[in-house]
Amino acid sequence: MTGAVPLARYSPWTRRGDFIFLSGVIAVDAAAGRIVRGFPDLPAGVPETIGATGEFSADFKDGPILAQSWYVLDRIRATLEDAGGGMSDVFKLVQYFTDLDQFPRYNAVRRLFFPEAPPVSTVVEVSGLMPSRAILIEVEATAWLPHPRR
Amino acid sequence: MTGAVPLARYSPWTRRGDFIFLSGVIAVDAAAGRIVRGFPDLPAGVPETIGATGEFSADFKDGPILAQSWYVLDRIRATLEDAGGGMSDVFKLVQYFTDLDQFPRYNAVRRLFFPEAPPVSTVVEVSGLMPSRAILIEVEATAWLPHPRR
Amino acid sequence: MTGAVPLARYSPWTRRGDFIFLSGVIAVDAAAGRIVRGFPDLPAGVPETIGATGEFSADFKDGPILAQSWYVLDRIRATLEDAGGGMSDVFKLVQYFTDLDQFPRYNAVRRLFFPEAPPVSTVVEVSGLMPSRAILIEVEATAWLPHPRR
Amino acid sequence: MTGAVPLARYSPWTRRGDFIFLSGVIAVDAAAGRIVRGFPDLPAGVPETIGATGEFSADFKDGPILAQSWYVLDRIRATLEDAGGGMSDVFKLVQYFTDLDQFPRYNAVRRLFFPEAPPVSTVVEVSGLMPSRAILIEVEATAWLPHPRR
Amino acid sequence: MTGAVPLARYSPWTRRGDFIFLSGVIAVDAAAGRIVRGFPDLPAGVPETIGATGEFSADFKDGPILAQSWYVLDRIRATLEDAGGGMSDVFKLVQYFTDLDQFPRYNAVRRLFFPEAPPVSTVVEVSGLMPSRAILIEVEATAWLPHPRR
Amino acid sequence: MTGAVPLARYSPWTRRGDFIFLSGVIAVDAAAGRIVRGFPDLPAGVPETIGATGEFSADFKDGPILAQSWYVLDRIRATLEDAGGGMSDVFKLVQYFTDLDQFPRYNAVRRLFFPEAPPVSTVVEVSGLMPSRAILIEVEATAWLPHPRR
Amino acid sequence: MTGAVPLARYSPWTRRGDFIFLSGVIAVDAAAGRIVRGFPDLPAGVPETIGATGEFSADFKDGPILAQSWYVLDRIRATLEDAGGGMSDVFKLVQYFTDLDQFPRYNAVRRLFFPEAPPVSTVVEVSGLMPSRAILIEVEATAWLPHPRR
Amino acid sequence: MTGAVPLARYSPWTRRGDFIFLSGVIAVDAAAGRIVRGFPDLPAGVPETIGATGEFSADFKDGPILAQSWYVLDRIRATLEDAGGGMSDVFKLVQYFTDLDQFPRYNAVRRLFFPEAPPVSTVVEVSGLMPSRAILIEVEATAWLPHPRR
Amino acid sequence: MTGAVPLARYSPWTRRGDFIFLSGVIAVDAAAGRIVRGFPDLPAGVPETIGATGEFSADFKDGPILAQSWYVLDRIRATLEDAGGGMSDVFKLVQYFTDLDQFPRYNAVRRLFFPEAPPVSTVVEVSGLMPSRAILIEVEATAWLPHPRR
Amino acid sequence: MTGAVPLARYSPWTRRGDFIFLSGVIAVDAAAGRIVRGFPDLPAGVPETIGATGEFSADFKDGPILAQSWYVLDRIRATLEDAGGGMSDVFKLVQYFTDLDQFPRYNAVRRLFFPEAPPVSTVVEVSGLMPSRAILIEVEATAWLPHPRR
Amino acid sequence: MTGAVPLARYSPWTRRGDFIFLSGVIAVDAAAGRIVRGFPDLPAGVPETIGATGEFSADFKDGPILAQSWYVLDRIRATLEDAGGGMSDVFKLVQYFTDLDQFPRYNAVRRLFFPEAPPVSTVVEVSGLMPSRAILIEVEATAWLPHPRR
Amino acid sequence: MTGAVPLARYSPWTRRGDFIFLSGVIAVDAAAGRIVRGFPDLPAGVPETIGATGEFSADFKDGPILAQSWYVLDRIRATLEDAGGGMSDVFKLVQYFTDLDQFPRYNAVRRLFFPEAPPVSTVVEVSGLMPSRAILIEVEATAWLPHPRR
Repeated sequence: MTGAVPLARYSPWTRRGDFIFLSGVIAVDAAAGRIVRGFPDLPAGVPETIGATGEFSADFKDGPILAQSWYVLDRIRATLEDAGGGMSDVFKLVQYFTDLDQFPRYNAVRRLFFPEAPPVSTVVEVSGLMPSRAILIEVEATAWLPHPRR
Repeated sequence: MTGAVPLARYSPWTRRGDFIFLSGVIAVDAAAGRIVRGFPDLPAGVPETIGATGEFSADFKDGPILAQSWYVLDRIRATLEDAGGGMSDVFKLVQYFTDLDQFPRYNAVRRLFFPEAPPVSTVVEVSGLMPSRAILIEVEATAWLPHPRR
Repeated sequence: MTGAVPLARYSPWTRRGDFIFLSGVIAVDAAAGRIVRGFPDLPAGVPETIGATGEFSADFKDGPILAQSWYVLDRIRATLEDAGGGMSDVFKLVQYFTDLDQFPRYNAVRRLFFPEAPPVSTVVEVSGLMPSRAILIEVEATAWLPHPRR
Repeated sequence: MTGAVPLARYSPWTRRGDFIFLSGVIAVDAAAGRIVRGFPDLPAGVPETIGATGEFSADFKDGPILAQSWYVLDRIRATLEDAGGGMSDVFKLVQYFTDLDQFPRYNAVRRLFFPEAPPVSTVVEVSGLMPSRAILIEVEATAWLPHPRR
Repeated sequence: MTGAVPLARYSPWTRRGDFIFLSGVIAVDAAAGRIVRGFPDLPAGVPETIGATGEFSADFKDGPILAQSWYVLDRIRATLEDAGGGMSDVFKLVQYFTDLDQFPRYNAVRRLFFPEAPPVSTVVEVSGLMPSRAILIEVEATAWLPHPRR
Repeated sequence: MTGAVPLARYSPWTRRGDFIFLSGVIAVDAAAGRIVRGFPDLPAGVPETIGATGEFSADFKDGPILAQSWYVLDRIRATLEDAGGGMSDVFKLVQYFTDLDQFPRYNAVRRLFFPEAPPVSTVVEVSGLMPSRAILIEVEATAWLPHPRR
Repeated sequence: MTGAVPLARYSPWTRRGDFIFLSGVIAVDAAAGRIVRGFPDLPAGVPETIGATGEFSADFKDGPILAQSWYVLDRIRATLEDAGGGMSDVFKLVQYFTDLDQFPRYNAVRRLFFPEAPPVSTVVEVSGLMPSRAILIEVEATAWLPHPRR
Repeated sequence: MTGAVPLARYSPWTRRGDFIFLSGVIAVDAAAGRIVRGFPDLPAGVPETIGATGEFSADFKDGPILAQSWYVLDRIRATLEDAGGGMSDVFKLVQYFTDLDQFPRYNAVRRLFFPEAPPVSTVVEVSGLMPSRAILIEVEATAWLPHPRR
Repeated sequence: MTGAVPLARYSPWTRRGDFIFLSGVIAVDAAAGRIVRGFPDLPAGVPETIGATGEFSADFKDGPILAQSWYVLDRIRATLEDAGGGMSDVFKLVQYFTDLDQFPRYNAVRRLFFPEAPPVSTVVEVSGLMPSRAILIEVEATAWLPHPRR
Repeated sequence: MTGAVPLARYSPWTRRGDFIFLSGVIAVDAAAGRIVRGFPDLPAGVPETIGATGEFSADFKDGPILAQSWYVLDRIRATLEDAGGGMSDVFKLVQYFTDLDQFPRYNAVRRLFFPEAPPVSTVVEVSGLMPSRAILIEVEATAWLPHPRR
Repeated sequence: MTGAVPLARYSPWTRRGDFIFLSGVIAVDAAAGRIVRGFPDLPAGVPETIGATGEFSADFKDGPILAQSWYVLDRIRATLEDAGGGMSDVFKLVQYFTDLDQFPRYNAVRRLFFPEAPPVSTVVEVSGLMPSRAILIEVEATAWLPHPRR
Repeated sequence: MTGAVPLARYSPWTRRGDFIFLSGVIAVDAAAGRIVRGFPDLPAGVPETIGATGEFSADFKDGPILAQSWYVLDRIRATLEDAGGGMSDVFKLVQYFTDLDQFPRYNAVRRLFFPEAPPVSTVVEVSGLMPSRAILIEVEATAWLPHPRR
């Protein structure tokens, strides 16, 4: 899986000095013109690892935030691999939610991506995210990668 | 035209290492105590370049966001020139809207300021911006300018 | 007083190159499981310095934002001291409010912490902050500290 | 492409004297039971002519009103051809929007259908249109066709 | 039963050329100063023909729109008879609802008044009708009556 | 005073057969780019004839609808004079309000313009009018003028 | 007609020194358990003197505030006559509205009761009045009657 | 067709003594992960029997509640057959709506399932049902089946 | 007074084994087509026993819930007498309110009907009850009557 | 218990001529910095006299308004005793509620304080009271005390 | 721990035949006059078993529903033990939420109490529960206990 | 500067006995038809004395309430001078706000006008003030001036 495709005319990432700056990432597969809305939009095997219960009602409720959390963080991981690094190089996250009551679900997924030293973090609830109300979270990551591709 | 005047007691920009950090910019002419509200608040000749149609009704609707988009980005350009650089040195934008349905209008104006390599970008809708409901957008830019003051 | 205790599993600050990045800070004493709600939650002597009038009604209204403003900025100060620096090393602030009508109160307190060269600044109103509606402000600071621990 | 199919039990058009009266037209393909929701619902080649940018986020925002505007006006054109006339015979339009902030988008598309002498026009924002919230515009046209099919 | 009594200072209908133009009709018996609110306000025998079930709860819910639909269309019929014509001369209807979810109820009643060739039709939901929230529908009819009173 | 200037790209009026069709008229002086907001925006001498009391508070409340009512009807009068007719040729009005509680104010002004045979009339409340919330009323008139310019 | 009947357990008026203090008056005929809702609730002959037009729609809109204004002021007049004085002894009014847009209607009626020297006056809009939403105005009057019944 | 599949970890029905207790039933085909949204989601032939008109607009409005009413009651029927009984064994229904204006539509469908002795019934409007806003009704049935499977 | 008349096509009560199941009861006199709205709708002598004060304002506020509470519980009593039992046979109540702030009023009335051993009880606030907003409470009772009509 | 402590910089009462004017009183113990929120905040023995039932749910609902009503009126009593008078000297009350549905509860408590000749009274519902949403009522009393302290 | 204490004047449970009927249970410790609001209100050791993470922010968000779910189900367990049975005797649950987005949290806790054969279940979202907005869930259980007290 | 000009047909003040009664005062310069909206509407030199900071953003937020507070109190002062007295003769204030969160700002300004013995005071938040939403405060003052014009 390759890095995030831009949704508009901007770069998914750029290097400046030792820093890698990423655009804010949302759960949209821009190439396919598709918003990630729940467990069925994830690769096989992933839902069970992030809290899917197999019960229709519960998964219908928690599926969207869990699936978007995974998708967004996985995109960040892939983008960093494009940049020659990895998830452990991320040292800062700004996280925008449209409903902060969903924070604990995101928090549980994030722990899978950052099992050890966690990044600095800012969390706020905003009134909307691009491109529609179906988007529940946007994450802007910054990484430190002092010796690229040498 | 010189760089942005601060609206409160903070700096319009500062250098740290090779980076130029800008305060978030809104469409307020602080010196004149005036909020930019539409095409008539722009310099002559500018409105036609950013989508003014000359029809009262259409321009009344799209004028505020188009004019603020131009004003804010032009302020960023002027601020960078104060810092010894230019628009092409901007590598990151965080963009706050009060109504994301206006994004396409901003997007069209931004393309005029970044005709080539676009910066990394984060876009969110917030519930309000300073100092009043008339403000539709705030943009925080960061630039990379490795050889200052030569 | 030591630096901010993280509210979740993330770092209060981290160094990358010459920069010190802080997590967004809110007025929660995580160790005590307590949200700062007004003047009585501040150390003795502080309220009078930030605008407490001693009149119940006025202090009931302005107390929350004044107290949280002080608490958050004081936490940032303490965190920077943990990192080996001080408040004057902060060069950038991103400030999230849940009600921008409270900005002048915050602004007055901030002046006490930055009596001289003010940092670059971004101010937006968001629809919510962690962990509850009682939180009125979150501040994300970045500092420049080129020669650490010498 | 033939004229508009009625969505309920009423006529798409009728002649009375020299006048052709049309039912209000919305962007529904009644035969297919499908509401036009964006660029992908238009014939190939059309989106580019009415403002599609190819950027997912911008097109996601403006696509619905641009696509419905084109579809509705194209239906009116086809209906008039059924009646033996053409778009230039339309002399009056009553246009109902569910959000008048979208007027400039409609206005730009309408110019393509009426490049010369424009019809008389009434524009209002209503609280709803049939059959659902996805419908953004309804247009009622009247034409003058004094010598039909002779 | 004679034609509609005007609710204010305007004409219930007027002839211009071969056309009969009617004022918008609402379910108010202006002479009696009474708004039609349900089945009990209709002439005996009518409710059963338009969907009354005899069950209190169901009739309480559907009664208002069914009764107003019948009353309004019957007024239009009577007005046209005043003008020397009949319901089949109506060729166009503009129909304003305050809640479009009630359209199917109106639609069923309208079919009784237009059993054959239906008129052209426009349907919109407005935010209010005269003189109060109790009014659910207003219908503006136009008729074609080329040889009056000969 | 000449007829209404179009606010967008459409005709203020057109003749078809013996009918004069007018675009919907709102209280905007498009040439001056100005919305009529109260008594001070009317020609001298007019306010006293339509209900101005000279008391600041009362005129502040009723001024907007009274002034817009006069302006809109006076524009219709001027437009008909452009077309070679007059106010008495108007036989139909469709009147859109954003707040029907203001109907009695409009009604009183309309009586001045139609002292004798009143036209047929439709009145609805819509959720918005072009170009902004300051517009309280739009009137669409149709006239019958069988022998133009002889 | 005698003075106002109390709606609850309190006095309609009381004398203290040279002052007559009245309870707030609303348009309820407590004896009959009836709220005044429009012109039909007033004595014959009164409606025409306070602005009734005889048109159903206009009177339906303005009737409630005009009728309540008259009823309340007439109650105050009757109460003062009970106290041995008259309307000209009233020197102060506190007036509570539930919708200040109705102020000009009240204002016109009040002028009839105070044709000469008007009292001091306070006007505010409150969120509700006793006993229900149908009440639009409450007036608290104070009078000066230095030589009672001597 | 077999009985209802549970949406979560609970039983569709259970026997206790002579009673059969059913879980609340909603219009979700849990096996297919699909919510019933309109006539197209019903088996062929069913829509016509429950009020489908074949007109797009009317069926779009009434389709969801009519289809869900049928689906839910048919599920109850199937569940009771699983339990060895039938619809006539149901003696009690608790019915939850998200919009009670839809009650008459449900009521008409229920009559088809209970042509004779109707059960006792409770009807309330709740603010939400599982798993999403698309669910319009939930029905909890209880049956009496004294001699099971003998 | 006999038992509750059904408001729609369902049974007021039914026996299954030793249990008497009642439909939910609301304060509607279905035979008279009348909703109980206050003290005047109760039999003479009842209001004073359930809290009527004789003051118009207070009774106007508390009357609806007090009167409906009495009416509903009295209907349940009458229905049980139809079934051969009495109020003391009721062992379970499910009580739906549209405003739980009214619970203490209901609670006081209920105590009159259940002076001794109270039934098990569930209380919730719902968003609506049949057939209109005027209904404030619905009560579903279940009784145990092991030896019927012997 | 002594008179009311001011919540801000104003006087609890003042004498002018024979009149005693009191500031508006709310249920705040300013000295203790505590808002009266329910029965537990009253002196022992008081709750039972003003309607406490001993049932948690009912007292939780009615407790706040009953307790604040008592506290406020008791403060007025104490203030008047400070001024050398008593409750029977109060001749006028202006009473502000944030929810007039609570009036009957206040009314019942007030009767205990004014068992005989009741004062003149004004009652309105306002949108807020100082210092927070927890305050449900404010009462402004005026007294007549012609011969002070002799 | 003993069974649930009633919050008002009704029984926590009652036996009728082989059935045990319980009142609806909410998370209130009526004896202590305390609403369960989060993990700190549970017995030591319990929070970790139902999802507490030890992170302040996450636990602040999920704590209320998790703690109330546990408390309510544990009360039901204790009540059944009072009745001589246990949790496995519960065969039916009616569950009222004030926010169905919290269902998955409740669902996870419920699984701990019903590890094997789950009861029949009804789930709805209501607009409020007694006694305050802090209550998030109410559960009404019914059990089958054929051989009591032998 | 002379006393307040009436906004409608009522007196700015009147004497009765030893009392001076003032109409409620709002920040409108009726003669100029202008509402006071911020610091620029005050006389030169005044803003700095009441809290203006010179920072655009802060002054834009606090300016309206600070400026109106000063203007209203200064009008009261001038009115009393018209009556032959001064600010220290005011003994009672009733203060209406549209947003009580602004009370501390008003409170600070009021202290400048009443440096010593403060008047009795009532403060409430109302839903609106005359003549528009721009008005934030109305103050009704009463003064005691026993020896007029000697």
